[in-house]
Amino acid sequence: MPSTVTELATAARVAARRLALLSRAEKDAALHALADAVEAATPRIVAANAEDLHRGQAAGMTTSLQDRLRLDAPRVAAVAQALRDLAALPDPVGEVVRGSTLANGLQLRQVRVPMGVVGMIYEARPNVTVDAAGLGLKSGNAMILRGGSAAASTNSALVAVLRAALHAHGIPQDAVALLEGDHDVVKDLMTARGQVDLLIPRGGAALIEAVVTGSTVPVIETGIGVCHVYVDRAADPVKALAIVLNSKTHRPSVCNAAETLLVHADVAGSFLPAVLSALHEAGVVLHVGPRGEVIARSADIPHVEATEQDFATEWHALQMSVQVVDDLDAAIEHIDRFGSGHTEAIVTEDRAAARRFVAEVDAAAVMVNASTRFTDGGEFGFGAEIGISTQKLHARGPMALPELTTTKWVVEGDGQIRS
Amino acid sequence: MPSTVTELATAARVAARRLALLSRAEKDAALHALADAVEAATPRIVAANAEDLHRGQAAGMTTSLQDRLRLDAPRVAAVAQALRDLAALPDPVGEVVRGSTLANGLQLRQVRVPMGVVGMIYEARPNVTVDAAGLGLKSGNAMILRGGSAAASTNSALVAVLRAALHAHGIPQDAVALLEGDHDVVKDLMTARGQVDLLIPRGGAALIEAVVTGSTVPVIETGIGVCHVYVDRAADPVKALAIVLNSKTHRPSVCNAAETLLVHADVAGSFLPAVLSALHEAGVVLHVGPRGEVIARSADIPHVEATEQDFATEWHALQMSVQVVDDLDAAIEHIDRFGSGHTEAIVTEDRAAARRFVAEVDAAAVMVNASTRFTDGGEFGFGAEIGISTQKLHARGPMALPELTTTKWVVEGDGQIRS
Repeated sequence: MPSTVTELATAARVAARRLALLSRAEKDAALHALADAVEAATPRIVAANAEDLHRGQAAGMTTSLQDRLRLDAPRVAAVAQALRDLAALPDPVGEVVRGSTLANGLQLRQVRVPMGVVGMIYEARPNVTVDAAGLGLKSGNAMILRGGSAAASTNSALVAVLRAALHAHGIPQDAVALLEGDHDVVKDLMTARGQVDLLIPRGGAALIEAVVTGSTVPVIETGIGVCHVYVDRAADPVKALAIVLNSKTHRPSVCNAAETLLVHADVAGSFLPAVLSALHEAGVVLHVGPRGEVIARSADIPHVEATEQDFATEWHALQMSVQVVDDLDAAIEHIDRFGSGHTEAIVTEDRAAARRFVAEVDAAAVMVNASTRFTDGGEFGFGAEIGISTQKLHARGPMALPELTTTKWVVEGDGQIRS
Repeated sequence: MPSTVTELATAARVAARRLALLSRAEKDAALHALADAVEAATPRIVAANAEDLHRGQAAGMTTSLQDRLRLDAPRVAAVAQALRDLAALPDPVGEVVRGSTLANGLQLRQVRVPMGVVGMIYEARPNVTVDAAGLGLKSGNAMILRGGSAAASTNSALVAVLRAALHAHGIPQDAVALLEGDHDVVKDLMTARGQVDLLIPRGGAALIEAVVTGSTVPVIETGIGVCHVYVDRAADPVKALAIVLNSKTHRPSVCNAAETLLVHADVAGSFLPAVLSALHEAGVVLHVGPRGEVIARSADIPHVEATEQDFATEWHALQMSVQVVDDLDAAIEHIDRFGSGHTEAIVTEDRAAARRFVAEVDAAAVMVNASTRFTDGGEFGFGAEIGISTQKLHARGPMALPELTTTKWVVEGDGQIRS
């Protein structure tokens, strides 16, 4: 396998040219072949993963990180199944997005085509390696993958299996490559402008910030979610309680979990005691602002005082910031100041309040009377996603197969010239 | 007017929030008000432009650059008319791009919304100042404009007129601002991540390269065009002659003009003498590769030997590189090596050759039997354009109103939570 970024990218470009011309049937057959190969290699993959786990344990890795890193036989089977699920999704390549016939007879159409060479920099979970390879193949892109060092052995085994399976299936193995080596090669990847068409960082805030500020290759940011649930004066308290609990506790470690609860002052007295005690019972540590604290204290609900910094924090855990706000305007202002542009939810039965919240909140996804946890490619019906974009360029929200493509204008004429 | 980038961007953000909520009727009325104000201020604008011209003449500016810089009364009228034309175009904001109702009853829609604050860095022509302000207003974005120093007085007068007209019309004047000051402020603009949502450079290769490599704000590249016309073995020679001449000579200074002619070896002997002498008669300096030179010499057509560098050059003038290629594969390879991903044309009556060219050439626009000059927002029927993107992210090809927007997912439910 090539090793420097230039070698990898050059090989990937050659592969990408072939991938761009594959039919859907060819790509889907290859995805099934990859799935079979991954399953057949289960012992090798699990053994490689054991090396990573062993190294992690020796280095004092937390049990939750170990769990994220672990690939046992059922998880390998799930990873393989995800590849088969991809085969069942429509091919984004070749889709005609717009088109028209101009007055001069030119036939114009905007067609989806692959990006070309896509780099991805990500952390721990090794299933991302296979998911990214599959999404790349289906969307006709060659992928250069840079996984976290904690999963080095697993990723190396997975990519070796995938490359061998591609080769056996008559598809250039350089359609998927792993970028190994120290941190310098990551810098090379981020500055490989013209060689790499798109870079997707997926991981914690520090990783994303480093990629965004250090790259000259176009980047799509994914992941940071300081999401709010705003319980309006006109909220149905039953729906509000369920939505707050679900948004916070359903899976607190992910980016679409809620981090902050905002409650309209008019209903804080009635709603806060119920929701705070339910959150507390669910194990959530509550960081409560001054007006909410009075209520929490008198209801005898354990909590800590919220600091300014708390409201800017993505807890990624069973912790939640709580603030009482004067009205809808104050809620929108708070979100504008502290939100990360991921997912924001309002709970209200008031049409006007819902319309204003939807229009004025600037985020990838805005929910009315629904859990923040729904911002997800699978939930939206897209099948697999490569991440959730919180930027405004190209893709915003769940990034699935179409977001891994660009377009090409095809103009067909019969000798037309401009006059 | 605020002056530092942070002041400008903060004021622009406040204005952008208002702009995002304006109805189409409000925006169109404002565009007409801006047009009227620009026309009414013709003497002031022409006087400011005279200062720029005077300074340019004193500094030895070429007459062609002086012509680009000049704003006389008819040109001011044309600039105003462009604003009125924008009012007649559909509003991109609020367009529902996709949508569905999920099995759980959630109603999902992806809606176009403004980017927010858009920066634009551009060179000489002062009509771009007004065009950009108008496109920004119509798409609901606040614009921070950084024009070339050669047009400093004109741009300052234009933006003052626009801001006063916005204010008089009840729209925040910070919807349009001019970034003045030395080069340091440009660096501030390029690194105003989080304050500026998108940066669009428009100008020469050096400007675009500097913005692309120096920015942490997301950038859409515009403009560089090393465009080719490939005359295939199966080309209709009459169409080919007209398309080559039109692509090269119709307006040689723009990015969609052709820079290189590629001719299939099988038809070089019959086609080259005719096309080279027609180009020569049209005043085009011919830079001919070795195999074409033999033909040019025997047909006694004045030319120079093409260097390797010539094939990478965007002439922007009545000059053209010429290369004879073995076949379609060699043409695609040449384009892949030297093309800038802007516009590539094939002239052929062979369906299979056209299909391969369209599929395999990686460019924003691919033409079959049509002039490269058609890659243009106006020609494509989009109305005004802010530039032609040669990158793959977000916008590729002519960038009109929809390309100045992003999207927001709106999810409406009735209490749904994830299980």
